[in-house]
Amino acid sequence: MKKILTLMTSASLALGALAQQAIWGVPQLISPEVNADNTVTFRFAAPNAQEVKVTGDFLPTEKIQTPFGEFDGPGSAALTKNDQGVWEYTSPVLAPELYSYSILVDGLKVNDPSNVYQIRDTGTVTNIFIVKGGGGDTYSVNDVPHGTVSKMWYHSPTLGMDRRLTVYTPAGYESSDQSYPVLYLLHGMGGDENAWTELGRAAQILDNLIAQGKAEPMIVVMPNGNAAMQAAPGETSQGLVPPTTALPKTMDGSFETHFPEVVSFIDTNFRTKPDKAHRAIAGLSMGGFHSLHISKQYPDMYDYVGLFSAAILPQQQGEPSPIYENFDEKLAAQFAQAPKLYWIAIGEKDFLYQANADYRKLLDSKGYPYIYRESPDGHIWKNWRIYLTEFTPMLFK
Amino acid sequence: MKKILTLMTSASLALGALAQQAIWGVPQLISPEVNADNTVTFRFAAPNAQEVKVTGDFLPTEKIQTPFGEFDGPGSAALTKNDQGVWEYTSPVLAPELYSYSILVDGLKVNDPSNVYQIRDTGTVTNIFIVKGGGGDTYSVNDVPHGTVSKMWYHSPTLGMDRRLTVYTPAGYESSDQSYPVLYLLHGMGGDENAWTELGRAAQILDNLIAQGKAEPMIVVMPNGNAAMQAAPGETSQGLVPPTTALPKTMDGSFETHFPEVVSFIDTNFRTKPDKAHRAIAGLSMGGFHSLHISKQYPDMYDYVGLFSAAILPQQQGEPSPIYENFDEKLAAQFAQAPKLYWIAIGEKDFLYQANADYRKLLDSKGYPYIYRESPDGHIWKNWRIYLTEFTPMLFK
Repeated sequence: MKKILTLMTSASLALGALAQQAIWGVPQLISPEVNADNTVTFRFAAPNAQEVKVTGDFLPTEKIQTPFGEFDGPGSAALTKNDQGVWEYTSPVLAPELYSYSILVDGLKVNDPSNVYQIRDTGTVTNIFIVKGGGGDTYSVNDVPHGTVSKMWYHSPTLGMDRRLTVYTPAGYESSDQSYPVLYLLHGMGGDENAWTELGRAAQILDNLIAQGKAEPMIVVMPNGNAAMQAAPGETSQGLVPPTTALPKTMDGSFETHFPEVVSFIDTNFRTKPDKAHRAIAGLSMGGFHSLHISKQYPDMYDYVGLFSAAILPQQQGEPSPIYENFDEKLAAQFAQAPKLYWIAIGEKDFLYQANADYRKLLDSKGYPYIYRESPDGHIWKNWRIYLTEFTPMLFK
Repeated sequence: MKKILTLMTSASLALGALAQQAIWGVPQLISPEVNADNTVTFRFAAPNAQEVKVTGDFLPTEKIQTPFGEFDGPGSAALTKNDQGVWEYTSPVLAPELYSYSILVDGLKVNDPSNVYQIRDTGTVTNIFIVKGGGGDTYSVNDVPHGTVSKMWYHSPTLGMDRRLTVYTPAGYESSDQSYPVLYLLHGMGGDENAWTELGRAAQILDNLIAQGKAEPMIVVMPNGNAAMQAAPGETSQGLVPPTTALPKTMDGSFETHFPEVVSFIDTNFRTKPDKAHRAIAGLSMGGFHSLHISKQYPDMYDYVGLFSAAILPQQQGEPSPIYENFDEKLAAQFAQAPKLYWIAIGEKDFLYQANADYRKLLDSKGYPYIYRESPDGHIWKNWRIYLTEFTPMLFK
């Protein structure tokens, strides 16, 4: 009997691995390597290439030309071939942060095959790495109690479909009978119900801030803000089709109109504190636009409002929607019982900077209270992770 | 007021998108394109390349040489440059299936930048596509009610750590007060708690089979079978380190010994039917080894056992463990109240074929009942998706 009762030898282990599809090519290089001094070394095996570069948001920006004008794009740096035929580059010392990058091989943009950690942003997949310390620690998985992240579906009678959402419940939710406050956290144009947990590191941020006692334990609900879509690309019966930003029904009032169905689903299926004092809504870009309109449309619902680089644009366009009508009156109603926190944050280089400045002027002219936070940089995930890290500790206190 | 209440124009939409990190490079090509006749066209822009190939499991295998001998590896096919300077290749008609592939550019293996759909298998990330029909339909998201997929953490006193697992609850779980049977579904060497939902399409398979009335609504629990690990690569405080198959405590009895803690966590936190008649355990490769030993170690616990390409190896090696002792006696005890289903499946080209044949001989010699299923191909995910599709309809009936 002994002969069939076994542990694998290391040879058979490798054999087993080889026989699996996994081992079409196992990374042989360490790349990227975050060094002790917070420089980062990139390595790439391309013996026949003439030129290998790395491009990413850890490098100084470069001007890029587009049909819409000149913009800051991610910079690049050249790798050099070492004596083993491997291309290498070591960055300057980097500030703690989560960074994205790609490799350019003779002008062709590819992912780093030594790094399995990648995130999708709309139609682009890039590699990521984290430099620890500060925000880098907040975005990392640490030895703290972890919440649960669920992908679930609710039915929307208004939109006539089942829709997918992401729910974070804090550590201890399962083992207690406590009720929790809820933050509704909305994504931007081109995003979906996966964006805040993947690009935004929302679960890590919440786990860490709650463990440090900086944020109250809370449920975070991340729905899909594209009212024409059931779910993220690849998660619907449309199949594995290319993602797009050219979706209908993103900022036409449909999402805002149906939003009470999301709240009702959450209050029915989770142990929430279902009142204004224990409900927050925040979003980035289009999600900031949604948060602005939802919080004003339902003035008794949200005591905490966060507009992160909100898409408040200077000109009325597109289909009219009852949601956007009587703006002044609705805003007056909202601020008649002002939210405990109305938080506006934007980067100084954001293309929505002026629109947000105009909106603040309006609030100022009416004497409506809000807190304003300006950060460096533009319309990028780095800012939205920072805003989430700063916003959540102010909630439900 | 009107001027700040707005919908985006299509120009500002594009502008907003451009200003985001996402638009480092938007895919301009459709690749892969699954054509109406189930041929598939691959397109790749590499104007300066000398040779572009596609390699994947949809092509006839080729012999590859390794330190452990000659094996079947995925084949490759050459793309040709078309008159727009884009490389193209159209496959023969493909059978319905989920396929993986990569692009080889002058010998360099890269992912297809036009296809955001990728899955990680241990240390390798490859693109995927689905040819519909048959298994291709079963692995697709269809217009059926969808279950919930949760990533959660349980505490293991035995292993001295919090550990991550994936739980699928069937559509309707939230809206009912019904109790459900549970399938424990285990991954192989190099896998983790993400493997069955990502590579194995377990949520899609269950959603579709349940909607068709072929499988009973059930909870599926997918723990991490590497007892030295808390969670999948990137999900622990070790950070974004390269995945490895060289882990300790995978097949030394630790996982099996701690396994009742998983069952207890599930029975405590979910509405289960907590008895042998409503509990199944199955796994692939190392997970088949775990399923064999757990089901025999706890003979009153599992009425359904599935060994998918199980790692039953012909020679005792490594550390002894009480779990593996007294094998004959424990197996006799298990089959004294034989499971309702003991299902053994393997591919005819699997490197574990002979070991499974030997094990079946043992069962035959004792008269222990089991069902045997042999499929083409080897130790690959295609087989494990097929086995899950065949196994789950036999459960809890």
